[in-house]
Amino acid sequence: MPRPAPYRLDSASYPVTATYQTRFQDLDTMGHLNNVAYAALFESARIAFNHGFGRRARADDPFRAVMARNEINYLAEGTYPEDVVISTGIGRIGTRSWEILALMEQGGRPIATCDSTLVMTASAGDTLPADFRALIETMRMREG
Amino acid sequence: MPRPAPYRLDSASYPVTATYQTRFQDLDTMGHLNNVAYAALFESARIAFNHGFGRRARADDPFRAVMARNEINYLAEGTYPEDVVISTGIGRIGTRSWEILALMEQGGRPIATCDSTLVMTASAGDTLPADFRALIETMRMREG
Amino acid sequence: MPRPAPYRLDSASYPVTATYQTRFQDLDTMGHLNNVAYAALFESARIAFNHGFGRRARADDPFRAVMARNEINYLAEGTYPEDVVISTGIGRIGTRSWEILALMEQGGRPIATCDSTLVMTASAGDTLPADFRALIETMRMREG
Amino acid sequence: MPRPAPYRLDSASYPVTATYQTRFQDLDTMGHLNNVAYAALFESARIAFNHGFGRRARADDPFRAVMARNEINYLAEGTYPEDVVISTGIGRIGTRSWEILALMEQGGRPIATCDSTLVMTASAGDTLPADFRALIETMRMREG
Repeated sequence: MPRPAPYRLDSASYPVTATYQTRFQDLDTMGHLNNVAYAALFESARIAFNHGFGRRARADDPFRAVMARNEINYLAEGTYPEDVVISTGIGRIGTRSWEILALMEQGGRPIATCDSTLVMTASAGDTLPADFRALIETMRMREG
Repeated sequence: MPRPAPYRLDSASYPVTATYQTRFQDLDTMGHLNNVAYAALFESARIAFNHGFGRRARADDPFRAVMARNEINYLAEGTYPEDVVISTGIGRIGTRSWEILALMEQGGRPIATCDSTLVMTASAGDTLPADFRALIETMRMREG
Repeated sequence: MPRPAPYRLDSASYPVTATYQTRFQDLDTMGHLNNVAYAALFESARIAFNHGFGRRARADDPFRAVMARNEINYLAEGTYPEDVVISTGIGRIGTRSWEILALMEQGGRPIATCDSTLVMTASAGDTLPADFRALIETMRMREG
Repeated sequence: MPRPAPYRLDSASYPVTATYQTRFQDLDTMGHLNNVAYAALFESARIAFNHGFGRRARADDPFRAVMARNEINYLAEGTYPEDVVISTGIGRIGTRSWEILALMEQGGRPIATCDSTLVMTASAGDTLPADFRALIETMRMREG
């Protein structure tokens, strides 16, 4: 049950931070934010992060990626109606894949981390396009 | 990007298998089952698995557990309105934690695996209750 | 607070009936099926109903419709993990619009009704296509 | 297909207005906010509205209410990631029931209205508690 590394729990490690609203729908029968709601919140943060650095899917662009792996570590129970703050950055960059790492905080304490691995589809080529790699390099985590 | 071990992709490794309906809500803008929908489907399978072996949360029972970690490996895109088949079993059992492992198939091919780590809450004691450990031992994965 | 008319609470009034699974995600903090979950379940039933009579959206078909109105009457609290049974049929047919009416039952008792009004988009013409109107006429409610 | 009355499309008619984030999860396969997502957004606005005037459910308070009816009128397609603005007020007040009315706007144009009817549970008495009625009277719609 290893805890995430300390730099993963510090929002200063991540290049992008934004605030997200919770919804009544996010609550489970115990009155906490449901596990699946964390996944939906991290997804919205990841989409915003991707849009933020300016490369969107275009019909004429053969570059496509899919999520290969998503891991959430739950550190504390979340509540409604308080907002959550999600920080996001790029982790490992491989030949055909890259990681998007995120931290969720509520009321100033970390409540979850998320590690997503994205992978180029086979039809998109053998290596990440150089311009895309350059873009995501600028959004790297700061490991302190 | 290691693929899950072969036994993880074989439903015969899991003691429980059940069929789950997909919903129109599960679709994303690409017309595939959304990543978060996989999480919701695995959750329903996990709840059913837990109910199946007969120990539910009771108000007078100090034993409580929370999800500490949830990892989904996405192997192929899922479609609607086809059902998914989810197989579930117990993985590693620790002093205060245990794993629930699952496989999602659609149309006979594996489309995702899910590894969940559950952990006893601090107030619930130092080790898993013996009766609970005995129950989950009966639901172990068969690693072949 | 008028109750739905008696024929609306009788599944025999509807030409199509199917069973839908509930999910753990559907529960609210009171342990009942959440109001929004009813909407998602009725949506899946409506999509299945539409697919059942054989006219899907096609890229070359200018006929498009959107939902203009959706009304749910909540008659009793729903539970998980029991299935719900949803019955669906066509109500009023207008010049450019039509109603899809539905009943949700659980454990043999009605728990909700849903009235949806669909409307042709402006670009799709002035009246419902004759073949479409003929199709939906075959799926009318039986008002007994 | 009557449109909502003009005062219903004017946020100045409603005593409370707040901004809500949309989520990637809210999108359907057409790239618009899904019908069910509107219901989830209106629900969060309704919960916030209820909390705002200070009467929450308490374990020692026999007053309970349930939603009896929820009607959404869809006026235009919604988009992501733009926020929506939801305005909320009290409509008709009956002996044992009351209406919560809402308007959703995006980019300054109305995209949906929602009419919810709440009803006291039978065990909660024959008429709305006087203090509750007085509270909701202060949150009435302004019909202009």
